[in-house]
Amino acid sequence: MKAEIICVGTEILMGNIVNTNAAYIAEGLAGLGISCFYQSVVGDNDSRLGEVFKEAAGRADVVILSGGLGPTEDDLTKETVAKAMGQELVLDDKAWKQIQKFFEKRNLKLTDNNKKQAYVPRGAKVLYNKNGTAPGIIAINDNVTAILLPGPPGELIPMWDDQVAPYLRSLSGESFYSEMVKICGSGESFVETDLKDLIDAQDNPTIATYAKTGEVHVRVTARGASEKEAHKLVKPVVKEIKKRFGSKIFTTDENVTLEASVMQLLNENKLTLATAESLTGGMFTSRLISVPGASEVIKFGFITYSNKSKRKYLGVKRSTIDKYGAVSEQCAKEMAKGCAAVTKADAAVALTGIAGPDGGTDEKPVGLTYIGVSVLGKIKVKKYLFSGEREKIRESAAAAALTLLRQCLLESLTERTFSVK
Amino acid sequence: MKAEIICVGTEILMGNIVNTNAAYIAEGLAGLGISCFYQSVVGDNDSRLGEVFKEAAGRADVVILSGGLGPTEDDLTKETVAKAMGQELVLDDKAWKQIQKFFEKRNLKLTDNNKKQAYVPRGAKVLYNKNGTAPGIIAINDNVTAILLPGPPGELIPMWDDQVAPYLRSLSGESFYSEMVKICGSGESFVETDLKDLIDAQDNPTIATYAKTGEVHVRVTARGASEKEAHKLVKPVVKEIKKRFGSKIFTTDENVTLEASVMQLLNENKLTLATAESLTGGMFTSRLISVPGASEVIKFGFITYSNKSKRKYLGVKRSTIDKYGAVSEQCAKEMAKGCAAVTKADAAVALTGIAGPDGGTDEKPVGLTYIGVSVLGKIKVKKYLFSGEREKIRESAAAAALTLLRQCLLESLTERTFSVK
Repeated sequence: MKAEIICVGTEILMGNIVNTNAAYIAEGLAGLGISCFYQSVVGDNDSRLGEVFKEAAGRADVVILSGGLGPTEDDLTKETVAKAMGQELVLDDKAWKQIQKFFEKRNLKLTDNNKKQAYVPRGAKVLYNKNGTAPGIIAINDNVTAILLPGPPGELIPMWDDQVAPYLRSLSGESFYSEMVKICGSGESFVETDLKDLIDAQDNPTIATYAKTGEVHVRVTARGASEKEAHKLVKPVVKEIKKRFGSKIFTTDENVTLEASVMQLLNENKLTLATAESLTGGMFTSRLISVPGASEVIKFGFITYSNKSKRKYLGVKRSTIDKYGAVSEQCAKEMAKGCAAVTKADAAVALTGIAGPDGGTDEKPVGLTYIGVSVLGKIKVKKYLFSGEREKIRESAAAAALTLLRQCLLESLTERTFSVK
Repeated sequence: MKAEIICVGTEILMGNIVNTNAAYIAEGLAGLGISCFYQSVVGDNDSRLGEVFKEAAGRADVVILSGGLGPTEDDLTKETVAKAMGQELVLDDKAWKQIQKFFEKRNLKLTDNNKKQAYVPRGAKVLYNKNGTAPGIIAINDNVTAILLPGPPGELIPMWDDQVAPYLRSLSGESFYSEMVKICGSGESFVETDLKDLIDAQDNPTIATYAKTGEVHVRVTARGASEKEAHKLVKPVVKEIKKRFGSKIFTTDENVTLEASVMQLLNENKLTLATAESLTGGMFTSRLISVPGASEVIKFGFITYSNKSKRKYLGVKRSTIDKYGAVSEQCAKEMAKGCAAVTKADAAVALTGIAGPDGGTDEKPVGLTYIGVSVLGKIKVKKYLFSGEREKIRESAAAAALTLLRQCLLESLTERTFSVK
């Protein structure tokens, strides 16, 4: 089964709002194993919308539209689609009663415009709206199924979850299974090169790589007569990828972030963490604290942007800064050591670097970064050279610190296991 | 002039990421007075992309594509567009040198894939990329101008700002002038209501509002025979908006962020700042540190996520936490006061709140936040109730803290001015 998404609205076309509806619907379709090869955005314009709809209807089995179901004259999605499908609009009594109730409850005055929202193509399945006035619509003719949804995400999302997804699930013959392998500490082109033979040979399952800052995500997707069968096809490919990337894989759970996987490592091993950030100025700690339950793990964070604060709070020696500079292996080491000592945390991470745009020299260019990690007294410092503008450099550094912390934790845990043996 | 936007990428089509590039480009086009009636999303597939591109090229003067310029075999935007435009790909020496340098600088090994990124359609204008490996491309034939941009927003945005927008401005026969008014501390619907008469009457200039977290941006755009003439039309409208929103307007400079305007206030008045973050865990300070030159202003930041660290480092009384809880007006006040006292900074900001998903009660629901600001010894605490998920709540809190700090600074400076008088 093939679907297409058409989002209707001048606000999207003008960039006033980001099209989160398309992403929500697309993710929903992917989860149902329904292919979607095109998304479009078009304004509230009868001829342009009609043209885009007809094109989509010619390619897909299901066309999902959002927006343009409002009460104003601008809103014409329903009218345009009904015309294109050769269907007449008729009043749906239940929808009209619900709209009247909606207004009564809020002590609002109904206008003539509002009745327009209760008209639906004859024979359509009506998706009643608990969160607004415009009902959704499933209209079917010999060629295509059109699903019309209201634009506000607060109305669209529950309507999708409660009514559209179950409907589509009942239609779909094929099943689909996909698994995500998330890798840190390897660039996209390296991951691609390492997977080239698998990617070249791909058919079912397919393999796709996604580059994130400091991470590469690999999605393996298979189709089959049942989800179980599709799962069976995915399994050996994921196993092979795991073999190739080993401990660089931080999760195979779609919903687990790099920071969540690091927090889990800390949590499971009952290790506390403290942080000392210069370059990133809180960004690294903020990523960790985005994980629920962070208060069990994060003892304290220092944002030591100035040299003075590095000395005062972390005990970095004045002579170290004088001799090597604040952006140096030695300073990162003392920051990590001092941070762990002062807070008595089991692990500490320190970041120092040159974010730019100023402050770079030939010897120490913008992007130069040192990250120090202390785990149970053992300290490791790594040097990096990140590219891009100030924010990009800071984001890359925060991601690299997560990867380095993870690596040090894994090494420390392996040692501990061996020493116990 | 008419433009269309095509975003290429399976990640968008599968809903893995939200299409922020389309919104950025669309907003940019609107600011340049270039009409855009269609946006499309298509996967990394030669025939489907070719078809969508040809259709767009048939309707528009300029087609802007993002994504699919990477080094992998999946990436084929350049190849497909060049074929559709009847253009041969040739190696661009400068781009290839830049890619080699990019890898050298990072001590990374070049793969054969990477050279592919240096090929461009013969005769194309090459948009060199300071933030990644893929150059952007402006390819022109008799029918259409195609502008190809890399997918990562960190590469696309600076390339748009520095190279594409000036290029498009030079193409357009008509002149446009647009000014941005950025407002903090007012919701979008309030801003719209306050501007309703101006928006209803709009023709030339036009007025568009854009909601951001904690901010509303209002763009006023006029067309005219010359930029000067367009500027003349914009001026009185911006003046009227300024009159209506007063000190809630933090800038009329497109490139100035809320954090930059706050840093400027601190800098100009030679005030230092310290921070104490619980809820936001470094996110607030990180936003300030994203502004170049932050080291002159930010004395120190505490990330006090645990109650113990609030007591230990900020001197919050145990009795305060026992009696009122860590998320309380009293605690926020002591955090701000303690933070200023310990660091001897002129100003201090403290954030405490419940980010969720757990930890909320009927009395103290998820989203409840207290922000304390101390400026030259005078402390103000404000209560907020933010909605949404954990990250949204934290982002809203960081934005609100910038707004509150700005407000307290303005009040303090006014008082100082008066007392000097």
